[in-house]
Amino acid sequence: MQTASSGAPATIDFWFDFASNYSYLSVMRIEEAATRQHVEVRWHPFLLGPIFRALGQHTSPFVEQKEKGAYVWQDMVRECHKYGLPWVRPSVFPRASLLASRVATLGASEPWIGAYCRQVMLRNFAEDRDIEAPADIAEVLAQLGLPAERMLADALTDANKLALRHATEEAQAKGIFGAPTFFVGDEMFWGNDRLDDALARCMSTHTPLRT
Amino acid sequence: MQTASSGAPATIDFWFDFASNYSYLSVMRIEEAATRQHVEVRWHPFLLGPIFRALGQHTSPFVEQKEKGAYVWQDMVRECHKYGLPWVRPSVFPRASLLASRVATLGASEPWIGAYCRQVMLRNFAEDRDIEAPADIAEVLAQLGLPAERMLADALTDANKLALRHATEEAQAKGIFGAPTFFVGDEMFWGNDRLDDALARCMSTHTPLRT
Repeated sequence: MQTASSGAPATIDFWFDFASNYSYLSVMRIEEAATRQHVEVRWHPFLLGPIFRALGQHTSPFVEQKEKGAYVWQDMVRECHKYGLPWVRPSVFPRASLLASRVATLGASEPWIGAYCRQVMLRNFAEDRDIEAPADIAEVLAQLGLPAERMLADALTDANKLALRHATEEAQAKGIFGAPTFFVGDEMFWGNDRLDDALARCMSTHTPLRT
Repeated sequence: MQTASSGAPATIDFWFDFASNYSYLSVMRIEEAATRQHVEVRWHPFLLGPIFRALGQHTSPFVEQKEKGAYVWQDMVRECHKYGLPWVRPSVFPRASLLASRVATLGASEPWIGAYCRQVMLRNFAEDRDIEAPADIAEVLAQLGLPAERMLADALTDANKLALRHATEEAQAKGIFGAPTFFVGDEMFWGNDRLDDALARCMSTHTPLRT
């Protein structure tokens, strides 16, 4: 067991799905906020769909519960205003995020992961555009100066598909029931509303980090 | 249509259930926070049970979803620490809040409503004691120097029982799906995490207030 005070870099594990509107808020904020606090972000793309189905839900709770759904779109307008983020309510929700997630799985430890995730999220939640087709993701990758064709092929290998499936199974095993979810060591923080608390926890010298 | 700038007092409508742990946080905080910002609090006790049942849930989502439930008790420890509130995880959850709510209905516009609600909440979430029996509520009322016997009788009149039922129906009609929920005019804010935003909205000169 190491602690942050022992010299290990403070780290936050960030679990998100490109289909999730509250994940949008955290994807846009986390890299800047973490850098400011000298915290390293570990990106964990995963799929909420199988998690929801295992919990007996057919789709997003914002679709299943019409009252909550109606509220969430009001809340998103205010939250985006609060954080200075653009917002257009998606005409399709939740959007299929499988391919976008496979590419994120491929690049989870690459220097472009943050920029890639922000571009995909902006496409979904600020431009109301699909993120499902290879052409959609190729456009995002090309914007970032990345070799789209090769990366899409790599994203579709069996090994990479399996890596995303394993990430989703790991999310489930960790008790994740929604997104975004943050872990600081073993400690779970759920929701964009807890990102600041999770980062503060990283900075606490008493934070146990797993070794 | 009036606006806050027209001289009408800024008002926040506060919907809560004594059984709800996140309502506990807001009940403890709202009067002080609102007073500081010259906002008037209108207290709306209601029952979440019928709302949940109408949404197809049998009980609290924190009981129905074991993963979310496990998380919530961790989150409450941190949230209470953040706000400087005492916390003991209730050994019974959710606690029957009917009688406590009927007394709150009786006193919703009385000067003692805030103090009463805080005492009931502390009993449930800081002392792990029941709030169901007449003796429980009588003890709270006596602590506040209120005539417990007469008030319990008044709380159990048909008119007062009906008033609480109507409040719950009104909550449902307003699209409330959880607690605490705040309204500033027609605008809904859900959850203790949005109390500060709701109070800030009260202070905005552009806030439309219903007349």
